[in-house]
Amino acid sequence: MYRTKTCGELRASDVGQTETLAGWVQKNRRMGGMTFVDIRDRYGVTQLVFNQEINAPLCEKANKLGREYVIRVTGVVKERSNKNAHLPTGDIELIVSELTILNAAATPPFTVEDDTDGGDDLRMKYRYLDLRRNVVRSNLELRHKMTIEVRSYLDKQGFIEVETPVLISSTPEGARDFVVPSRMNPGQFYALPQSPQTFKQLLMVSGFDRYFQIVKCFRDEDLRADRQPEFTQIDCEMSFVEQDDVLNVFEGMSKHLFKTIRGIEIAEPFPRITWHEAMKYYGSDKPDIRFGMKLVELDDVLKGRGFPVFDNAGYIGGICVEGAADYTRKQLDVLTDFVKRPQIGAQGLVYARVEADGTVRSSVDKFYSQEVLQQMRATFAAQPGSLMLILSGQDATKTRKQLSELRLEMGNRQGLRNKNTFACLWVTDFPLFEWSEEDQRYYAMHHPFTSPKPEDIHLLDTDPGTVRANAYDMVINGVEVGGGSIRIHDSALQNKMFRLLGFTEEQAQAQFGFLMNAFTYGAPPHGGLAYGLDRWVSLFAGLDSIRDCIAFPKNNSGRDVMIDAPSVIEQSQLDELNLSITHVH
Amino acid sequence: MYRTKTCGELRASDVGQTETLAGWVQKNRRMGGMTFVDIRDRYGVTQLVFNQEINAPLCEKANKLGREYVIRVTGVVKERSNKNAHLPTGDIELIVSELTILNAAATPPFTVEDDTDGGDDLRMKYRYLDLRRNVVRSNLELRHKMTIEVRSYLDKQGFIEVETPVLISSTPEGARDFVVPSRMNPGQFYALPQSPQTFKQLLMVSGFDRYFQIVKCFRDEDLRADRQPEFTQIDCEMSFVEQDDVLNVFEGMSKHLFKTIRGIEIAEPFPRITWHEAMKYYGSDKPDIRFGMKLVELDDVLKGRGFPVFDNAGYIGGICVEGAADYTRKQLDVLTDFVKRPQIGAQGLVYARVEADGTVRSSVDKFYSQEVLQQMRATFAAQPGSLMLILSGQDATKTRKQLSELRLEMGNRQGLRNKNTFACLWVTDFPLFEWSEEDQRYYAMHHPFTSPKPEDIHLLDTDPGTVRANAYDMVINGVEVGGGSIRIHDSALQNKMFRLLGFTEEQAQAQFGFLMNAFTYGAPPHGGLAYGLDRWVSLFAGLDSIRDCIAFPKNNSGRDVMIDAPSVIEQSQLDELNLSITHVH
Repeated sequence: MYRTKTCGELRASDVGQTETLAGWVQKNRRMGGMTFVDIRDRYGVTQLVFNQEINAPLCEKANKLGREYVIRVTGVVKERSNKNAHLPTGDIELIVSELTILNAAATPPFTVEDDTDGGDDLRMKYRYLDLRRNVVRSNLELRHKMTIEVRSYLDKQGFIEVETPVLISSTPEGARDFVVPSRMNPGQFYALPQSPQTFKQLLMVSGFDRYFQIVKCFRDEDLRADRQPEFTQIDCEMSFVEQDDVLNVFEGMSKHLFKTIRGIEIAEPFPRITWHEAMKYYGSDKPDIRFGMKLVELDDVLKGRGFPVFDNAGYIGGICVEGAADYTRKQLDVLTDFVKRPQIGAQGLVYARVEADGTVRSSVDKFYSQEVLQQMRATFAAQPGSLMLILSGQDATKTRKQLSELRLEMGNRQGLRNKNTFACLWVTDFPLFEWSEEDQRYYAMHHPFTSPKPEDIHLLDTDPGTVRANAYDMVINGVEVGGGSIRIHDSALQNKMFRLLGFTEEQAQAQFGFLMNAFTYGAPPHGGLAYGLDRWVSLFAGLDSIRDCIAFPKNNSGRDVMIDAPSVIEQSQLDELNLSITHVH
Repeated sequence: MYRTKTCGELRASDVGQTETLAGWVQKNRRMGGMTFVDIRDRYGVTQLVFNQEINAPLCEKANKLGREYVIRVTGVVKERSNKNAHLPTGDIELIVSELTILNAAATPPFTVEDDTDGGDDLRMKYRYLDLRRNVVRSNLELRHKMTIEVRSYLDKQGFIEVETPVLISSTPEGARDFVVPSRMNPGQFYALPQSPQTFKQLLMVSGFDRYFQIVKCFRDEDLRADRQPEFTQIDCEMSFVEQDDVLNVFEGMSKHLFKTIRGIEIAEPFPRITWHEAMKYYGSDKPDIRFGMKLVELDDVLKGRGFPVFDNAGYIGGICVEGAADYTRKQLDVLTDFVKRPQIGAQGLVYARVEADGTVRSSVDKFYSQEVLQQMRATFAAQPGSLMLILSGQDATKTRKQLSELRLEMGNRQGLRNKNTFACLWVTDFPLFEWSEEDQRYYAMHHPFTSPKPEDIHLLDTDPGTVRANAYDMVINGVEVGGGSIRIHDSALQNKMFRLLGFTEEQAQAQFGFLMNAFTYGAPPHGGLAYGLDRWVSLFAGLDSIRDCIAFPKNNSGRDVMIDAPSVIEQSQLDELNLSITHVH
């Protein structure tokens, strides 16, 4: 028994008790003949007191304690004269009579404080010290709580968690697989799953009815800031359901999480908008609806008035920013630079303000009469004090995406994107296919198992680009936290999908034969979705990167710099696997 | 909305209601002008009734329903005249007025019944149909329930579930790693974890205090009947603990599982015996203590009496089987053959019976007087009607293991190993090292991070083979369901362990430098354990193989025969990974 209490537990009601604590030295300071040591563990911090006059050798031992030493102390709980209202243990201190050093500590390479002096690289190399910081550990505590609540909710709804295999087969469709050479089957490879998609569908064929799994998935992609080669999904599937059934169950789960994790009760149903509406009004399939500022189309108002940029555009649109009419010329120049950045790619920015008297003053006054400008103002329904920002371009989709970026930027500037405000919605009716100009073929927008809407099936042969899918995403604050679809459960339709996606009969059979075969033995209608756990935790924790809610993340080169993985392996391991390394750049 | 109720839900109280069900056709039979269809889903079976006289076309449609067709039906709930007490829905039937075929089904390759006609290979190839069988699915439901209860218990005890990485580094110590080539780091490989051992210890260094994780682990071993290349552990670690603290917490968890999953209240503490006692009294480090039949040493009684086999033996020992004195000569020959099998390797079997009058009759009567045989009987404390079975050999450990096998065999024959009786114990004080004759070196019996008992540390230099570890296993019914240890938390001692295990300073640094480094920054005393989830579920489900509690298991060649993994990958994938296949046998 190393301790009788944790470092976060003692209160005024414990005064007079003898207790033993164990933990890390957070601070050590001398004042007069006294030494005060803060001892820390996961549960809190307690002040220890050593008195030079009462026990000089013990006090001298305490004076030598360095930061992060691991100690055990026994003493009597005393009420503090100087109470600290910021600490749950702030009413008491421990008058130490015994001190054992359990382990010494070298001086850590950065301070173990919420506001540390350690840079990113250093903190990643010494991640085990970084994880001692309350701000980092609390993200992982939140993550734990979320998975507990997810499981609790789904279990109550009759879902069964089933573990699907990690060592599976490689499928070239989709992102790149990580592969695992098989020693027992020379020349053959397993692949790590990008998702348990086919297995969860097989479980529906097996009659499992309601399945879920919190599961690691893998993608060998060139990493962007917010991607990890291994990531965690809340993966779910249900049988005998239509789209509304899935949406209702998982809207319920989301509300449960908001309530239990963030203490937020959401009474109203989540708004549901179609993908077409999302693109039209927000220029994005994952709109942030914490604020309005919807995209407004201005072709009818602004075309054919002699301003060549607009007259020649395929699309003119804008947003109206309330209360931003006082933006200075300099601020507007910054916005113009913002939209002209290569990542956004607009040609320029037109702006117009509504003055206090209702007059509109724009950057294109010489082309437009006040009458036309007032028509524009009416289209925006812009109030005095508003700033209208207008972009144009050949391609409506591209220009809408530029407006979407501008909209988010203005949301930030106007303080409309508070991390503690949450706005959820469903985006539905995604297109079934995406056309790739580069490859001159269709790709599945979601994945090849997504069902087209029954009323659009007749378009598969004639106009596949217009076919809508029974697919949906859940979006919170502009982040796609999850997505899914109703699946195809008919082997003939599944076969047709594979052909439309350019699979030969043989390829489809080789890669997905087991699934299509399974469908011939009585597949129920089914559908589901998957949430990105890392993203959702980040959102609830108010983090900018998913990395801080992962205990041991990898960097942008896919390296774990703490353990130095990946690394070279021994020649004997390669030999056993019948592999050789061809060349290394 | 595909259904208003599941197929296991309707009761007499629902009579008169109109309800819609969806599921699979289990059975279809005609009687008189009626057709009776059993419709099945995960929740149960409901009898559907179609009447030729009332709706002939509907009844004919029903007549054509094949086994495993997926259907939806609507009808009125009616009380059955012929109730079926074996079915929860046996009081009612549904008089169908609407029938929709949601999906047809080819005739399954084996019957989807508890008692199927499908062989192992066929069931594995069509695992999605095998999983429809109640007996298989119920194992996975049990597995789900167990993980829910494990998490619930540990969460209440303050444990945090933390996900550790799957893509880590290869360490040659231990079993063989599966490796994953890194495309972004050419020539380098990740390894899949054999356990999250080092990461959970780092989490203790990070102050997480109480960690757990239900996690996939991987071992590239030649597979035995009860091994899978990927398996699941309940992995746990605690800080500021001694061995008793760990044992108490996890004994509590085990009792919680027995109570919630099997409805068994275990009031008494689990027995705790040392490894030395286990070997001495059971010849096994995982004794089945559902029955006694302890090993008895007979050297003092039987040596030096002129029976050359025993006189020359290094060890003589036996077991006493109550009520087995009536074993026939033929049965005893079978036992003799059993112990002489190469897997067991005894030279022969000596037996002796205690007759009703107390006389002992043995197979070695010509060497031993009745007086000596009575001495032996007293050593066994054998009652009339008992059979004593005796083995001898040069090596005590080997002979004890042979006796252990014989003991288990006799336990089976005497009906003492009931699958619904459970006997748990802790085996403690394992040796720290195992000597390998082949490699002429010591290996860690548990793993290199296990702490020696403080009182044995002085023996590390002089007599490492006798050093006992703070290591423990939890054994249920002769199955090692979990094991763990108190860890080394001192970098100097850890370094010493690596040297005793034959690591050079450089090798230790290269492979475990991050851990030893972490220990210098204030590592707390810590320890933990890991349970084999697959084994524990098998035990609770009364299965002979772990395979039946895994949704999609692999066969003994590490293949998933359903999806046909592993498989060849494309040359372009190999090229991207800078790999070539050297040769394939």
